[in-house]
Amino acid sequence: MARLSIARLNELASAALQRAGAAPEMARMAAAALVAAEAQGLGSHGLARVAQYAGHLRSGRVDGSAQPTVVRSRAAACLVDAGEGLAFGACALAVREAITRARAGGAAFAGVTRSHHFGAAAWHLEPVAAAGMVGLAFGNSPAAMPAWGGRRAIFGTNPIAAVFPRRAAPPLVIDLSLSEVARGKLMVAAREGRPIPAGWALDKEGRPTTDPKAGLEGLMLPAGGLKGAMLALMVELLCCALTGAAFGFEADSFFSEAGNRPHLGQAFVVIDPDALAGSEVFHERMETLVATMQLDPEVRLPGQRRVELGQQAEAQGIEVPDALAAQLESLAA
Amino acid sequence: MARLSIARLNELASAALQRAGAAPEMARMAAAALVAAEAQGLGSHGLARVAQYAGHLRSGRVDGSAQPTVVRSRAAACLVDAGEGLAFGACALAVREAITRARAGGAAFAGVTRSHHFGAAAWHLEPVAAAGMVGLAFGNSPAAMPAWGGRRAIFGTNPIAAVFPRRAAPPLVIDLSLSEVARGKLMVAAREGRPIPAGWALDKEGRPTTDPKAGLEGLMLPAGGLKGAMLALMVELLCCALTGAAFGFEADSFFSEAGNRPHLGQAFVVIDPDALAGSEVFHERMETLVATMQLDPEVRLPGQRRVELGQQAEAQGIEVPDALAAQLESLAA
Repeated sequence: MARLSIARLNELASAALQRAGAAPEMARMAAAALVAAEAQGLGSHGLARVAQYAGHLRSGRVDGSAQPTVVRSRAAACLVDAGEGLAFGACALAVREAITRARAGGAAFAGVTRSHHFGAAAWHLEPVAAAGMVGLAFGNSPAAMPAWGGRRAIFGTNPIAAVFPRRAAPPLVIDLSLSEVARGKLMVAAREGRPIPAGWALDKEGRPTTDPKAGLEGLMLPAGGLKGAMLALMVELLCCALTGAAFGFEADSFFSEAGNRPHLGQAFVVIDPDALAGSEVFHERMETLVATMQLDPEVRLPGQRRVELGQQAEAQGIEVPDALAAQLESLAA
Repeated sequence: MARLSIARLNELASAALQRAGAAPEMARMAAAALVAAEAQGLGSHGLARVAQYAGHLRSGRVDGSAQPTVVRSRAAACLVDAGEGLAFGACALAVREAITRARAGGAAFAGVTRSHHFGAAAWHLEPVAAAGMVGLAFGNSPAAMPAWGGRRAIFGTNPIAAVFPRRAAPPLVIDLSLSEVARGKLMVAAREGRPIPAGWALDKEGRPTTDPKAGLEGLMLPAGGLKGAMLALMVELLCCALTGAAFGFEADSFFSEAGNRPHLGQAFVVIDPDALAGSEVFHERMETLVATMQLDPEVRLPGQRRVELGQQAEAQGIEVPDALAAQLESLAA
């Protein structure tokens, strides 16, 4: 293992993406998101994605010179065209626009179209929490799960995230994919040659498997069965029907360098507590719920572990496997 | 079994609620929602609730003369005070206000506070779909599930619903509670003296049980484990922190006549496709996804069964168990 500072990892990841064709700002924003995810213990959305994004830039699946643009604008809604670039700049623009609109009118919806993998969903909501607002994030991804009762891949693992700010503590951060486990976990297991538990995935023929590679070629199972499948449909429609983005079954897998421009979609909802019961009431309610959850010492607040790991990484850097560090150095050289 | 028409059931349910103290409009709106749920095969949110609501009206848990009122209003957000009445008028007002705001600005959020049980969540979104818009609904309920890792009841089974209109077909309707099964199913099983499958509930001491009464006194298990628990937290905060409503652990169970005024919360998001990629794109995307799901003959579209059962009930009436019909007649007399 090599211990590298956050700053050094940002430099390496950004250089790697620029060498593959990303404009400096696109590279910087993607690097920041991937390094932060790695720092927060979310390895499946972390540094392992640098080589993947670089491959997509090189193969033309991502346009490294894309400029995200607001293409539809109303008082409480807007649509951002990611222009077939990496997703991070487009999502940041959409969230910024949603915050401005929610500050003015109390709530806003922002969609992103012609986009790519948006990493850890909750990352995009950090500015929402910093503005004292509540945020929801949804993203679709290449098809990995069947509709309920079906055998073909229709929906992505389609994450849902939410942030709720607290007055004197880090925000509560909810972030989950709708498969029984995140697809990235199969990628990590495949890279490390470990089997996966039964119940995570089906193979191409719809049979249960413990081989992560067979699972990556097959179907993921939805969390909670029918309920996860219905929520995945909801996310797919929020992200694509409203924005014109491509459904999961129209986007080629991220796990190969060749393929189409995925044209995926993202959706954000931002709500200003000041417009409703007000900030005083909001924070009283937040602290009452947190205090009640913490009466049980075994309950962890969602997002707390990410914050702790992130702070630790700021201070001490991150332990990176030698092979991954060498890959980053090589891509950046 | 007795076969009763929708009109007759509406008369009986409305009369029963009025006799228990509800003003005519409050009774009419609650009756319409409960009869529609029964007609659509959602027995746990149907006619069995008439006696429950009547009990709450008689005991003072519900104020039968409450008038729902918009108490905070911004361009894209508003807060409705249900005034401790039944939830249906307040939710209808909130949704109406959200549709008006979304028509003007593209999207809106509406919250409801000091409310009660809101029945089948998707019911409230019918006007949203009829207006050609996308809607989300969230509601909290008396505590029934633990936080992840905990042993005390913190969250309700906290439904999430969504509607997506179609041009020439009934809307897609997603509606699910975040427990492995709806709490109402335990009530039905208890009434009918049937055991429940393992995995639905824990008893008071946190042990697995197949006794629906022990489950009703104990804890429900979240759908998808940690993921369902995190979504339940999200719903609780959307419905209560923004609105000032009571958390699930602050509201007494609906399944006893005595108890506090539950002061629960509801939250609605309405989005106008015209403000984003536009209606043409929206409907192309809807039909593309539906057609792809239907390539597999075993896949059912969510909400379709409800529509079919509802149409059948309109034409032929509803088969009601004799005991339930007698209860309704007696409450209405």
